[in-house]
This record gives sequence, structure tokens and C-alpha cells, in this order.
Amino acid sequence: MSAALTETDRRFLRLAYDQAKLGYEEGGCPIGSVLAEGDRLIAAGRNRRVQEGDPIAHGEMDCLRRAGRQKSYRRMTLYTSLSPCMMCTGTILQFGIPRVVIGEAQNFAGNPDFLRQHGVEVLVADDADCVALMRRFIAEKPELWAEDIAED
Amino acid sequence: MSAALTETDRRFLRLAYDQAKLGYEEGGCPIGSVLAEGDRLIAAGRNRRVQEGDPIAHGEMDCLRRAGRQKSYRRMTLYTSLSPCMMCTGTILQFGIPRVVIGEAQNFAGNPDFLRQHGVEVLVADDADCVALMRRFIAEKPELWAEDIAED
Repeated sequence: MSAALTETDRRFLRLAYDQAKLGYEEGGCPIGSVLAEGDRLIAAGRNRRVQEGDPIAHGEMDCLRRAGRQKSYRRMTLYTSLSPCMMCTGTILQFGIPRVVIGEAQNFAGNPDFLRQHGVEVLVADDADCVALMRRFIAEKPELWAEDIAED
Repeated sequence: MSAALTETDRRFLRLAYDQAKLGYEEGGCPIGSVLAEGDRLIAAGRNRRVQEGDPIAHGEMDCLRRAGRQKSYRRMTLYTSLSPCMMCTGTILQFGIPRVVIGEAQNFAGNPDFLRQHGVEVLVADDADCVALMRRFIAEKPELWAEDIAED
């Protein structure tokens, strides 16, 4: 962790968790995301692989899609309940998002070091609720989780 | 180029170009993509940033979305009229797609070496029609192209 989370960070990370929880209740992969510029919410999204049959709709991707076309991401922060996979990592770099706040990286390590190597500020909150929700999902639906991260 | 394109490769790359051309005629970014397993077409797609107001809908992403949920990508080839950006590169790696055929890498270099470093077979066709269509688009709509690759 390169710095402490602000109150705004904690608020938006909670919103990402709420999205994850909603995804869980829908029978999907419980991963949520929020895009914000300072304290201004731009969009929220969640993994919709199951809900929409869409393999690219990871939480972060769904959030960025819902944000619509943006001229620049250079003052924005992307919040995600779970550490980003390589698809979402590549997207963060391609879009030039400078700051990422991650709920947890225990259930899935993701690529925080790769982001940092490319100049992205990455904070990992180690949020107990994010950890517990994801752990429960993986225990309940291991095949769905394997599909979501393309492990065969 | 690590090997020569097969007849099947040329056929699917042409289909990716046709998708790109359709995108151009719709007023969008002219980049098309095809997903196939051997000579079996799985899906075709094109960049729909303009058409659907969707910033993650690059050609490759739209194609993968339209392919729907797949148990495994390990015998598939992804065709794309233009060299993949970092979002699409990360997605190819995350999904475990082992082979990528690129129409051209002159108008946008993309990340073929990064893909190769991670074990993906990458072929670049240097297709004259792909080059010409993309060159025409960039000359006509430089702002839209800058937006699509998040250059501000």
C-alpha cells in the first residue's frame, strides 16, 4: 500500500462492494467496481458474465462501459472489490487511469505490481467484507470462478 | 511473422476487414475482429465506440463479447484488422488465446512482442486493405482515433 485510503476512497470502495453483493444475489460473480473523479461518482458496475452471458463484463469493464465515452481518465480513480485480472489491468493502462483502489488481493492476486511498474498508484484496502464475499463465492461456485478467470 | 498465413487465416482475416469496413460505413472506428477454432467461425465483431457509446467495445472485445461464454479458448485464433492495444492484449492473455493474426501494425504498433513474450503465436499479415482503411480513418477523424486509444 503506497498511501492510506481517504474517506472518499472508503465510501466508493463500499459502493463497489455493494455492487459485488448485488452480483452475488443475482447468481453472478460478486465483483463490483466504481469510477470516480475526486468525490464525483462517474459510474458503478459489476461482473455480469452470468447475468448477460458476457465474458468481457468483469466488474471493472462493466463500470467503464457504463461510464460511456470519456475524453480523459487522467484525474480518475478506479475502485474494484477484487484485484484486477490481466484484461482489466491492460484496460487500466490503455485508458490511462492513474489510480486504482483494490478491496482485496487475497482471493485473487491480480497484477498490482505490473500496474505500479507502469506508474499507476495502487492501494490495497484488505477489506474484510470483500474478502469474505469472494471466499464464499469461490467455495460455492468453483466452476464459475474458474470460467471467469479462464482456468481450465 | 513466425509462420505463413493459411488459406483459413486469409479467409477469416478478410472477414475481420469486412467488419472494419462496415464500422467505417457506420461512422465508427474501422477495426474488425473474428474468433475461430480451426476453420469454424465462432464470432465476428467490430469497434462500436461510436455506434453504442461504449469505450470498451474495441473490435476484439466486441468479438469476444458476441462469442459469449466459452469453457476454453485454448484451441482458438483471434483475428484482428489492427494490432491489439493494451486492453485487448491483456484480454488475449487473460483468456488464454494462444494464436493471434493481425491485419496490420503500421498505423498502430500495439503490443505483439508482449504477446509473444507470454507465449502467444502472433502473425502480422501486412494487409494492404487493412492499412489503407485505417490510414484513411485516421486522416479523416484524428480526434476520434485519439479518443479510442486514450491519447489526450
